[in-house]
Amino acid sequence: MQNITITGIQTKDARFPLEDGAGSDAVHSGAEYAFAVTQLQTDKGIQGTGICLTLGTGNQLVCEAIEYLSAHLRDLDIEELMSNFGVVSRSMADEPGMRWLGPHKGVVHLALASIVNACFDLWAKARQVPLWRLLLDLTPEQLVDLLDFHYLEDHLTREEALAIFRDHLATRARREGVLRTGYPGYDTSVGWFQYEDERIRENAKKALDSGFQAIKLKVGSKDGERDVRRANLLREIVGSQGTIMLDANQQWTLAEARKMCAALAPMNPYWVEEPTHPDDIQAHRELAREIVPMRIALGEHVPNLVLFKNFIEAKAVHFMQPDCTRLAGVSEFITASLLARKYGLPVVPHVGDMGQIHQHLVLFNHIAMGHEALFLEHIPHLRKHFCHPATVSNGVYQTPQEPGLSSDLREATAGGR
Amino acid sequence: MQNITITGIQTKDARFPLEDGAGSDAVHSGAEYAFAVTQLQTDKGIQGTGICLTLGTGNQLVCEAIEYLSAHLRDLDIEELMSNFGVVSRSMADEPGMRWLGPHKGVVHLALASIVNACFDLWAKARQVPLWRLLLDLTPEQLVDLLDFHYLEDHLTREEALAIFRDHLATRARREGVLRTGYPGYDTSVGWFQYEDERIRENAKKALDSGFQAIKLKVGSKDGERDVRRANLLREIVGSQGTIMLDANQQWTLAEARKMCAALAPMNPYWVEEPTHPDDIQAHRELAREIVPMRIALGEHVPNLVLFKNFIEAKAVHFMQPDCTRLAGVSEFITASLLARKYGLPVVPHVGDMGQIHQHLVLFNHIAMGHEALFLEHIPHLRKHFCHPATVSNGVYQTPQEPGLSSDLREATAGGR
Repeated sequence: MQNITITGIQTKDARFPLEDGAGSDAVHSGAEYAFAVTQLQTDKGIQGTGICLTLGTGNQLVCEAIEYLSAHLRDLDIEELMSNFGVVSRSMADEPGMRWLGPHKGVVHLALASIVNACFDLWAKARQVPLWRLLLDLTPEQLVDLLDFHYLEDHLTREEALAIFRDHLATRARREGVLRTGYPGYDTSVGWFQYEDERIRENAKKALDSGFQAIKLKVGSKDGERDVRRANLLREIVGSQGTIMLDANQQWTLAEARKMCAALAPMNPYWVEEPTHPDDIQAHRELAREIVPMRIALGEHVPNLVLFKNFIEAKAVHFMQPDCTRLAGVSEFITASLLARKYGLPVVPHVGDMGQIHQHLVLFNHIAMGHEALFLEHIPHLRKHFCHPATVSNGVYQTPQEPGLSSDLREATAGGR
Repeated sequence: MQNITITGIQTKDARFPLEDGAGSDAVHSGAEYAFAVTQLQTDKGIQGTGICLTLGTGNQLVCEAIEYLSAHLRDLDIEELMSNFGVVSRSMADEPGMRWLGPHKGVVHLALASIVNACFDLWAKARQVPLWRLLLDLTPEQLVDLLDFHYLEDHLTREEALAIFRDHLATRARREGVLRTGYPGYDTSVGWFQYEDERIRENAKKALDSGFQAIKLKVGSKDGERDVRRANLLREIVGSQGTIMLDANQQWTLAEARKMCAALAPMNPYWVEEPTHPDDIQAHRELAREIVPMRIALGEHVPNLVLFKNFIEAKAVHFMQPDCTRLAGVSEFITASLLARKYGLPVVPHVGDMGQIHQHLVLFNHIAMGHEALFLEHIPHLRKHFCHPATVSNGVYQTPQEPGLSSDLREATAGGR
């Protein structure tokens, strides 16, 4: 391995207007997606790129937080940095002045996500391998040294994490077939909130024709009947065996969630996503008990593992949806996946990265931890802006082969500010 | 009442270096305090000032978030704005693009605190009364229209809040004596983390001599014996009947908190503050059960009422310490106090405002809701920077008489950036 030193850090406020109701949900009007981009320059010409998602407004704030937090990465050797990354990432998360602004949530934690992802991207490029390969080639000890278990000790220790990796080493070959067959996707773009019924009908047919086995519908209308009508419309098209997920994007109060889950139960959704406020562990716990056999998915707005551990302990979540652009990047995502594995919960990432990074991570989760290869969200809005857009064929993510995290953006198309 | 229109909004990044270990705790090195200041200009010359606290780094981020969020206050009449403030504050909290950065936490919510406080300051100045008077003069209906109960409905409804205010109207006179006698203070500046033993000893004696009935010590050393030694030293000076609070500032894991609470129990602290990570409801719940009769205080890092409600439901907190510069300002503080009142918990604010605004709010809590007049934290570091610094005599806050929230800063001394 060659020595590669970080010589400079730049940020980019990259904005992408969305068209025609794409990206809309019950609480987000969906006019714009944006990435707060971290670019690590090196003495060898290669560059590490990290991203985290925002909805445009305030993306600049995340970029500024990246500048504050990343300053002390300058002059570090990438291999040395990554040999002890759990300690480094924690020291950034606990930077005394910035910690007050969270801790471990909000703008500062989003910034950390972008920085951490840039470090992993640079590392994988330095070794000239895609992220999934990089991670699979590490020993259990090296993997665990990437992670920060602070405040998790009562639920997941370093030793337990080591044991999960070690226990799955012998059977890896059995699961590596996924690298050839690809990881299944599901289609989120069938039923954005602002789409008309007819458009949803057409999209659903297209999704099925193109090989997707599962699709998602946005719910959370002021008018509950609209939700029920659209859900039933989808069920009719997909058939009784098809997989449909419903996503309320936090729109309901607990009382509304109770009522709407009862109204939507007959169409048998695979999960109900973000039924109410993402901090409300108790509300999700009560709902989870009451709506059996319906199940709850959440995580896109859970900012750290302390909160995830509370959701798990309360049995308030059935499908964990961590996002490496909301949590502190690749490493906190891996820790979240270990936590989920220990407690027997499937990991179905939310893809703030449009699936670019998570397509690597779900392969790793499956092969190295034995997580079920369920399916990964597919959102193609920003395809044209990536240098190596994820390729989904016949409803299946094709295993990426380019070095890094697949998150490099094409300079020409990213409308920076 | 005259019509007063908001004609412009300015922000100020005001920084205040601290000297000599003041402000230090187990996780914050304490070199600097800062306020992200909102200034509402009007057509009548008077100005509304709002503040929220940060520890310096990143204060500029909060100022920028204020600029984004406050833009639509321009051209509004202050009386009209405040007549329906619950709806306005919620619409700012849920601004679609910014909401992704939280929701309801971090930089964006700190910005909202500063904005909301500026609105209340302007309103009180427009009516030429101090905040406590302004609030006491409102009817229960007017008070409740200031508040946002969204996502709280399962624990506190608008009707329940109305009932709390109405039920205490008839007995207000009984509690109004506090306006003459003043509200008791407690001294936080006895035992900052970096202070040497001898200094703590001197400070404690000074605090007792100057009339304080309660004092606080920072704990959370890597070396647990240091904590125990210092706590016992304070107990010796204060005597067995004196009130001492211990503050760990989130430093301990659950296992460490268990061990340290056992070691500190013999010196009989009045409460243990922030024993572990502020998002960890489960850890606080378990600790609360195990350390009886010791009691837990927390709130300075609880960003919204959804989380407070979860702490209360879990019986994970005994003393609520909401801060109107962490929550979304005066109005979310009042809602927190109503929630606490319903569940029988004392409110002992954390004073990110150095007590300037909270000295009004605790008077209101006592008179209008029947909260016990326990004591209010006193931190004098920034006295000289306020136009009307809180006056504590013989350990008691003197009731402020100047119009507004007492949070105007002297321009000359605030080292803005």
